[in-house]
Amino acid sequence: MPDYTQSTSLNSNRIIDTPTGLSDEMKQAMAQLPTPSLDAVKANSPSTQDQWLEQIHMVNTQQKKKVKAMRKHFNVSVELMSVAGVNVRKVTPTHISTCFEDKVYIDFHGGAYVFFSGLPSIEEGILLASRLGIVVYCVDYRMPPSSPFPKALDDAFTAYCHLKDNYGAHNIFVGGTSAGGGLALSLLQKLKQQNIELPIAVYAGTPWADLTNTSDSLLINEGVDRILVSYQGLLHAAATLYAGKYSLTEPGVSPLYGDFTGLPPVILVSGTRDLFLSDTVRVNRKLRECAVRTQLEVFEGLSHADYLVAHNTLESLAVYKEIKQFFLTAISTQ
Amino acid sequence: MPDYTQSTSLNSNRIIDTPTGLSDEMKQAMAQLPTPSLDAVKANSPSTQDQWLEQIHMVNTQQKKKVKAMRKHFNVSVELMSVAGVNVRKVTPTHISTCFEDKVYIDFHGGAYVFFSGLPSIEEGILLASRLGIVVYCVDYRMPPSSPFPKALDDAFTAYCHLKDNYGAHNIFVGGTSAGGGLALSLLQKLKQQNIELPIAVYAGTPWADLTNTSDSLLINEGVDRILVSYQGLLHAAATLYAGKYSLTEPGVSPLYGDFTGLPPVILVSGTRDLFLSDTVRVNRKLRECAVRTQLEVFEGLSHADYLVAHNTLESLAVYKEIKQFFLTAISTQ
Repeated sequence: MPDYTQSTSLNSNRIIDTPTGLSDEMKQAMAQLPTPSLDAVKANSPSTQDQWLEQIHMVNTQQKKKVKAMRKHFNVSVELMSVAGVNVRKVTPTHISTCFEDKVYIDFHGGAYVFFSGLPSIEEGILLASRLGIVVYCVDYRMPPSSPFPKALDDAFTAYCHLKDNYGAHNIFVGGTSAGGGLALSLLQKLKQQNIELPIAVYAGTPWADLTNTSDSLLINEGVDRILVSYQGLLHAAATLYAGKYSLTEPGVSPLYGDFTGLPPVILVSGTRDLFLSDTVRVNRKLRECAVRTQLEVFEGLSHADYLVAHNTLESLAVYKEIKQFFLTAISTQ
Repeated sequence: MPDYTQSTSLNSNRIIDTPTGLSDEMKQAMAQLPTPSLDAVKANSPSTQDQWLEQIHMVNTQQKKKVKAMRKHFNVSVELMSVAGVNVRKVTPTHISTCFEDKVYIDFHGGAYVFFSGLPSIEEGILLASRLGIVVYCVDYRMPPSSPFPKALDDAFTAYCHLKDNYGAHNIFVGGTSAGGGLALSLLQKLKQQNIELPIAVYAGTPWADLTNTSDSLLINEGVDRILVSYQGLLHAAATLYAGKYSLTEPGVSPLYGDFTGLPPVILVSGTRDLFLSDTVRVNRKLRECAVRTQLEVFEGLSHADYLVAHNTLESLAVYKEIKQFFLTAISTQ
């Protein structure tokens, strides 16, 4: 493993104020959730299967509580099903938008390819279902330590193909945040490669599109991003665990290194403090170089996936409003 | 003046590598131009008229050499004229794009509202004229120390109105980088307020849209942005000098605080290391909240206006290609 100490240790004692230009709700949300110290994050690097399982259990237990409360608050119905052997939860909101009556959205959850299996996998699905007014299928794809790459992509592929046969690709949107955004992009590249009909449009929320350590924001926003804090420690360990015997630059693992030609329109979301800001903008540029229609939205002062973590904020509402609008435009220009 | 020492001193000794994801040309350009130290930039705060004039003379003399070389290299013709009393340079490229035959672009140069009057004012105009294939009018608006706000806006307004009478608003694009981007946005707000017909579309390159010290990237990218380096020192001094007896939050000075309703489509450009990244994304969000069509492009690892400073790069070519495409789309949806 390379030594990143010199170039990144300089942020370790940084005192960072809350950004001025945030909504009051976001400021409050930031104040409520303590940010782990950079040193603690860097030191957290599980190596044995037991260490991983313990940490995954701890994180998922906490997240399950949040998601149960969200399920109740947003009053969605959740149906667990097997889609050609893949665990999927169908999330149905109380109100379906007229324009989305015959449409569905397939969601891939985040969690660095290790966290948020089971009920936690529907966190963003709940928001998308409720705020867009659309039926959402949340894919509970297999993950390490038991199932490294390409199991997650296999499951994403299987679920998409099966739902496509049911609904037709012209009625499907796909997307996700963080690892889920990366997985959605890898899925699209694989579908394209195999000449399988593509969905209408894609949502890539701060996608983990490059699992190596080359994105500039991994350096610049280290110790600045309150959610991920650093690539070192957990993220690097998760990247290695997920890739398994594959290279981190394998397009299925890091879609940034894949071919974006011929993809449907993609909306991308990030924040100025996001550790994956560079992943997001690099994907945007690659897409545009391939003449893919994109919309990039970067939010002032937001760290990685803040719009999802702190969903009760104006910033979060704005994100899902943009996604809805983008999807509507994609339908009208199909 | 507030004491920013605590929150910003932490970057002062930072060692920052060149971003990995840049083109070779951009890496080379970055290596060639030495970045001033954070301490030196902070300490540079002209206060007397003589100090300002000396610094302006020094900067403009150097820039004049660059622009003369560019004028030759891009083989544009430059005609100095008075447009209703305002100094304007008409820049005509060797080749005009068919789609822009009856169109013109009005450019407002950057330079923190103090630098780049005279020949240096056509730097970006040369690139826009050549790369878009369009006639460009570069407005050499009045600036401090002799002419603080609202003289620059008055000149922008006069030049626009006069050129509008000649060409028709439906044949005009406007824009600029940095202070020029901010001035273009303030102009649009003023035109809208006075019910004057608006141009087809606007280019706001890393606009200095908020001259106060609230944008988060002023903190996060301090000592990271190789071009501006810090808000403290020169930028703060220039902001105060420009605003004169007006508040820094006066919309004519800082368009972020103005009303964006009803503006024509705006394309915005920034970089992940840009000190004005937050200015750019905050303007983008305000515009979108007002239902204005926008396109935000953020480039990996670029500091403030790197696409203009280092114009012989793939990143720079990509910026002007996006602007051209955006303008063409704006014409077709007029």
